[in-house]
Amino acid sequence: MAITRHEPSKIYSKVVEANGFVFTAGITAADSKQDAKGQTEQVLKEIDRLLKLCGTDKTKLVSATIWVPDIRLRDPMNEAWNAWTKGENLPGRACIEAKLADPRLLVEIAVVAAK
Amino acid sequence: MAITRHEPSKIYSKVVEANGFVFTAGITAADSKQDAKGQTEQVLKEIDRLLKLCGTDKTKLVSATIWVPDIRLRDPMNEAWNAWTKGENLPGRACIEAKLADPRLLVEIAVVAAK
Amino acid sequence: MAITRHEPSKIYSKVVEANGFVFTAGITAADSKQDAKGQTEQVLKEIDRLLKLCGTDKTKLVSATIWVPDIRLRDPMNEAWNAWTKGENLPGRACIEAKLADPRLLVEIAVVAAK
Repeated sequence: MAITRHEPSKIYSKVVEANGFVFTAGITAADSKQDAKGQTEQVLKEIDRLLKLCGTDKTKLVSATIWVPDIRLRDPMNEAWNAWTKGENLPGRACIEAKLADPRLLVEIAVVAAK
Repeated sequence: MAITRHEPSKIYSKVVEANGFVFTAGITAADSKQDAKGQTEQVLKEIDRLLKLCGTDKTKLVSATIWVPDIRLRDPMNEAWNAWTKGENLPGRACIEAKLADPRLLVEIAVVAAK
Repeated sequence: MAITRHEPSKIYSKVVEANGFVFTAGITAADSKQDAKGQTEQVLKEIDRLLKLCGTDKTKLVSATIWVPDIRLRDPMNEAWNAWTKGENLPGRACIEAKLADPRLLVEIAVVAAK
């Protein structure tokens, strides 16, 4: 059994591979001056990059957890989400309201993918 | 490695199978006029149905995440939970407070099962 | 496919093994009179114990979800977290704010490990 960890910070790894699955950290936008849709686009682009590091991609998603600091941001978040998924190969998903580490952050997404 | 997705909406799949595991979306009650206990019963019945689609069942649960919009709803939710599990084959579980997509929703549950 | 459940209460199992993975429940401090750092230390000690029951340990963590009832508690929680991980073998992680089952609880942590 091998575990592969990518891009560890001091606190967490951005993505970890084990036993045929890939687990990302909760990913937030690098540029928190953007609105919820723009931040979601950033997050999903980063998730694309992290999945690629692990030899997998968004067509293999199995689960996504999405936190927004105001549940009304679900709509602009979904705009970016739907453009990204194109309605194909959709994972199970939960989207709930939660205050995030920085008040400027408008979305955080963690995914599990198969590989 | 095969991934099987069941009942995709525009946004997510209700349940996804991969590598010996089954991941449901965060499931909420179809009839949000019921109280927290009644909504939990609906959610758990729906989870039974989704697990069956994947060839598994509640005796194979490994993990459950439960969100309630008021932590005091944990008690009526647990009444329905305990009647459902019968105290057997219990998964790991976390129950936390979070505002959900619609204010009438009083519980959301996502589970991971083995198959 | 075998599922092994450890230390079930009436409601959930503290940790469950299946298909090469280990899933803990959301773990909280037994002594809720301690501050956030002290409670985190307790939780992580308990996670060590649970992982050991399953024949694995913190070097095999793949994912952690951390809930704090006030996001400002992330700092003292991280002090205990960083002392525990020593910056090595870091899992993916998400830390969000959520009200917990008892107002005295200042942190809840659920982890997934490989074994």
